[in-house]
Amino acid sequence: MSSQINPQAADTDRQGDYDPKTSSLSGTVRDEVMDELLSIRGSIDNFDAQLVYLLAERFKATQRVGHLKAVHQLPASDPGREKAQIERLRRLAQEAHLDPEFAEKFMNFIISEVIRHHQTISASHAENEN
Amino acid sequence: MSSQINPQAADTDRQGDYDPKTSSLSGTVRDEVMDELLSIRGSIDNFDAQLVYLLAERFKATQRVGHLKAVHQLPASDPGREKAQIERLRRLAQEAHLDPEFAEKFMNFIISEVIRHHQTISASHAENEN
Repeated sequence: MSSQINPQAADTDRQGDYDPKTSSLSGTVRDEVMDELLSIRGSIDNFDAQLVYLLAERFKATQRVGHLKAVHQLPASDPGREKAQIERLRRLAQEAHLDPEFAEKFMNFIISEVIRHHQTISASHAENEN
Repeated sequence: MSSQINPQAADTDRQGDYDPKTSSLSGTVRDEVMDELLSIRGSIDNFDAQLVYLLAERFKATQRVGHLKAVHQLPASDPGREKAQIERLRRLAQEAHLDPEFAEKFMNFIISEVIRHHQTISASHAENEN
C-alpha cells in the first residue's frame, strides 16, 4: 500500500512549480489572442527574474552600508542623499520613457525598506555591544 | 550686457546634474569612512539605473498587454496569473537571497500600477470607439 502513488500528494509537493500559462482568462479567449498574450507574458516573466536578482544585489550593497553605519554610529537615513537619488531617478526615468512619478514612488518604496533594514542592523549591533 | 555670463543662471540650468557625493553626513564622518560609503553608493547608483531601464522595458511589455486587452475587451486584472506570478517571485527571491516578503510587496506594487495603466488604456480605447 505504501508503494502506491498518490497523485494528489505529488501535485502538492510540486505546488511551487510555475506554469506560465496560468490565467483566469483561460477558455474565455480565442487561441491566437491567448498565444500573443502568453508570448508577451514570457518576456514579462524574464524581466521579473532580472528585477529580483538585481534587487537582491542592490540589497547586498545597502546591507554593507547598514553595517558601516552601525559600526560608526551614523543615522539610518540620509535625507540629502535620498533627495539627490530621487531627482536622478526621475531624470533617468524620463530618458527611459518611464513615468517619473512612478519612478519616484518606486524609489521611495525601496528607500523605506532600506532604512528599515538599517535600523534592524543598528539595533542588532547595539545589542551585541552591550 | 547680453554677452555677460550669469553664473547663478548657469547653476540653475544645471540643477538636474547629479552629485554622487551629496550627503547629509558630509563633514561629520571621517574621510576613510566617507570614501567607503561613496564607493558602495556608486554601485547602488549603477543598480538603480539598471532598475529604471528594466522597469521601463517591463512597462513597454505590459502596455502591449493593455492594448491587447482593450482591443479584445478583456478584464484589466487576471487574478490567476497574478497569484502565480507572486508565488514564482517569492521562490526566485529565496534563490537570490532576497526577502520573499519584500519580493511579494514589490510585485504587488508593480501589479497595481500595471492594472491602473490597463484601466487607462481601456478607458481611452472605449472613448475612441465612441
